[in-house]
Amino acid sequence: MQVAVVTFDGFNELDSFIASALINRCRKDGLEAFITTPTPTVTSMNGMEVTGQRPMEFATEADVVLIGSGVKTRDVVADDRLISMLPLDPSRQLIGSQCSGALVLARLGLLGAMPACTDTMSRPFVESCGVTVLDAPFHAEGNIATAGGCLASQYLATWVITRTLGEDAARRVIDYVAPVGEKPETVERAMRALRAGEAALR
Amino acid sequence: MQVAVVTFDGFNELDSFIASALINRCRKDGLEAFITTPTPTVTSMNGMEVTGQRPMEFATEADVVLIGSGVKTRDVVADDRLISMLPLDPSRQLIGSQCSGALVLARLGLLGAMPACTDTMSRPFVESCGVTVLDAPFHAEGNIATAGGCLASQYLATWVITRTLGEDAARRVIDYVAPVGEKPETVERAMRALRAGEAALR
Repeated sequence: MQVAVVTFDGFNELDSFIASALINRCRKDGLEAFITTPTPTVTSMNGMEVTGQRPMEFATEADVVLIGSGVKTRDVVADDRLISMLPLDPSRQLIGSQCSGALVLARLGLLGAMPACTDTMSRPFVESCGVTVLDAPFHAEGNIATAGGCLASQYLATWVITRTLGEDAARRVIDYVAPVGEKPETVERAMRALRAGEAALR
Repeated sequence: MQVAVVTFDGFNELDSFIASALINRCRKDGLEAFITTPTPTVTSMNGMEVTGQRPMEFATEADVVLIGSGVKTRDVVADDRLISMLPLDPSRQLIGSQCSGALVLARLGLLGAMPACTDTMSRPFVESCGVTVLDAPFHAEGNIATAGGCLASQYLATWVITRTLGEDAARRVIDYVAPVGEKPETVERAMRALRAGEAALR
């Protein structure tokens, strides 16, 4: 199973790399994440240049697509060419967004009537797409998930791993990456965020 | 004030990028982090290629030096040429390590008699350097700090920001990056880890 972590120029390192690094702890179990970019290299909001591991076309064939966040997401959703490179299909793909990535899901018409999570800065822009924004770190309905607040990217990764390999695999990954001395509580916090975000709607 | 996030080939993305991204939220306040590498590009443990922002020589002049972690740290400490590029000075620099980065601090003779934090996998190697390893995510004495468990890199960043710009700045950064709906508790957890790790020794 392959995961496209779609990463645009101006990206937030936390949003793309926490999700990809957590998911890549499952490579031996057949779940693998790739930084997926519209250009051969992309430069982060802090000037760090990364070479894409997969071209944008990969997003169409991946089993899971996560849309990262960054300081240029409003330019992304205004760019018809970029958006046309993301013909995602929630009937056969798990699709998630981190922070301003929710704008991309809204632009692709993938949120429908579902509420979304995003970061504080992106919130008014997501709301202006007619989407209800939750005061929560994570929300999922069916094959679509959204997360808000950079460090909530660990919950998005937890969702992907749980949905593809099961809860035990997700618990093992969070346990591994958690701070020493805080492992059980970190695992429980992630699983709690997942359960709350997947609960029946208010 | 400039921070060198020393990043070797085979690096763990979480360890280098969480610290650098958090610190770079303070760029407008004059605190800035740079991925500092021994070669023009380095490739992560998951095959992601990043262009270094500063050469290794930068570590000597930086105000703060954080040693990242990765799957090749034992090769790093065995490489006299690489180690000779890190003549760090705790009398004028803040120096921290993440996970296996503690091996580099030990090799440089910077830990002295202080105990250290590291990850579960690196623990036996750090102990074989004669260093006592703590069951804690963070420990600092004077200008030297160590953190263990990938996500403890947020505590290392909290320490750097607190020591350079003050606690309020650190609280603002953690609040910003924390998951939506979990912001106050995430800030308190980070400040608690910092206080516990800086407390007088047991």
